[in-house]
Amino acid sequence: MSHPFLLSRLAVLGAGLIGGSVALAARRLALCRELALYSRGPEKEAVRAAGIADLVTDDPAEAVREAELVVVALPIAAMGSILHAIQDALDPKAVVTDTASVKVPAMRLLRENLEGRARWVGSHPMSGGERSGFAFARSNLFERAVAILTPPETIDGEALTMVEAFWLAVGCRVVHLPASEHDRRVAAVSHLPHLLAAALICSVDDEALEVAGSGFRDVTRIAAASPEMWNEILLANRENVLLALRSFLTYLEEARESLEDGTCFAVKNLLLEAQRRRLSFDQRLS
Amino acid sequence: MSHPFLLSRLAVLGAGLIGGSVALAARRLALCRELALYSRGPEKEAVRAAGIADLVTDDPAEAVREAELVVVALPIAAMGSILHAIQDALDPKAVVTDTASVKVPAMRLLRENLEGRARWVGSHPMSGGERSGFAFARSNLFERAVAILTPPETIDGEALTMVEAFWLAVGCRVVHLPASEHDRRVAAVSHLPHLLAAALICSVDDEALEVAGSGFRDVTRIAAASPEMWNEILLANRENVLLALRSFLTYLEEARESLEDGTCFAVKNLLLEAQRRRLSFDQRLS
Repeated sequence: MSHPFLLSRLAVLGAGLIGGSVALAARRLALCRELALYSRGPEKEAVRAAGIADLVTDDPAEAVREAELVVVALPIAAMGSILHAIQDALDPKAVVTDTASVKVPAMRLLRENLEGRARWVGSHPMSGGERSGFAFARSNLFERAVAILTPPETIDGEALTMVEAFWLAVGCRVVHLPASEHDRRVAAVSHLPHLLAAALICSVDDEALEVAGSGFRDVTRIAAASPEMWNEILLANRENVLLALRSFLTYLEEARESLEDGTCFAVKNLLLEAQRRRLSFDQRLS
Repeated sequence: MSHPFLLSRLAVLGAGLIGGSVALAARRLALCRELALYSRGPEKEAVRAAGIADLVTDDPAEAVREAELVVVALPIAAMGSILHAIQDALDPKAVVTDTASVKVPAMRLLRENLEGRARWVGSHPMSGGERSGFAFARSNLFERAVAILTPPETIDGEALTMVEAFWLAVGCRVVHLPASEHDRRVAAVSHLPHLLAAALICSVDDEALEVAGSGFRDVTRIAAASPEMWNEILLANRENVLLALRSFLTYLEEARESLEDGTCFAVKNLLLEAQRRRLSFDQRLS
């Protein structure tokens, strides 16, 4: 499919799994004439060697100069100082989006640093998995993924359309949500599952692990993800994660009582409802 | 690899996912000269039409006649009456094994019905996944799976060797465990994860499900499994499942307190340890 989407200049700040994949996808799909990448530390040389960008720099201000669209793909802890550093270099017509997993704090950082200087829209492309770093970046990472857009309360249509068209072009299905609703939903379907997978694999002794099969492998796959990244995410979204955890524990507690009294009535109901929900979820995905 | 394993006659009682796959594997690998299958109800005609067995019958006694090895692949609730029904038809030199997921009650049923009449060894081939029924049976289901053998306290070497050689021939890695230790371990790596996946998918509302991605899909995949079968398994192994659940909740509770007080110290440690364990688990599997 040809698409009418073409940026004169795209800047991607951060070249980890997400930023690297954004850059690779933009190049493969020819979404921009020029591509600038901000990267620093040991990854910078690998990014430069990949030869995908017209400019690879450890100066974020240099990276965003004359960019129409700026994609900030950095941990929340790094976002504030980098957004501050690019303030004066941004084209006043630039549109900035980020890719953070927790949108309320990310939107606050965008507003605090960009108000009156550029337009911004929050983004969360829900892909990645348990690997991180540029070495695992790939141009098809976003195909069939959901990208959740969190526009600020006042946003002009042009900026929103640009960001939406970008994620559509790299293969995402786009959903619009308020930042707080985004954070509530991903707490339940992404952040809490990471915590459960981690607690499960830690609670199992080595002897039991020895006989674990494919079911256990799938349930705990996400436990291999970066502890630093996920600690930051869980902390940044802790109120929603705690709410999701409370809901989960309500169901689990009911099942436990049912197991304890040996009737298993609630367990059977839980399993029936779980199968129904899972099969309908599968159907929607396929 | 050629193997010296050849049975004159194999009987498989039950032609669901496991029994059907045992029959298909035995045929493909030519592990027996004659194959008899006990099947009843609506599945019987499909089993007959598949043309893999010399005999398909709804009379278990007829199925086991002259069999060297009998594989009982039935739910625990059905095992007692079928074992009782085959008592008089078994060759006194026959070896009987089962495939139940909970071994203490299965071993009790085997002893109660077979003592003085035949030899028996418990088996649990840990494969299957979320599908059940003959329609999903396949001859390579057991390749690279773990088969846990639970011999009774007194067992002659010949019987144990026959059962072990059978699972090795269909592609399993074989582990020997006392039945009680088997039940303890699989509670942690198989039964509890099913309960957690079910509680998780039930605790998530439809709006949140709408944005769920591949992580959630993997964590909850096993929630699609048969509620009837898993209810039986959880009930049969409830004491061990409750112990595993207690251990899991200890880790989860510590993480929750750490999230509540906002320090996330315990969360970070949990995620670090989870990643370490998961990566070493992956290494062992590959």
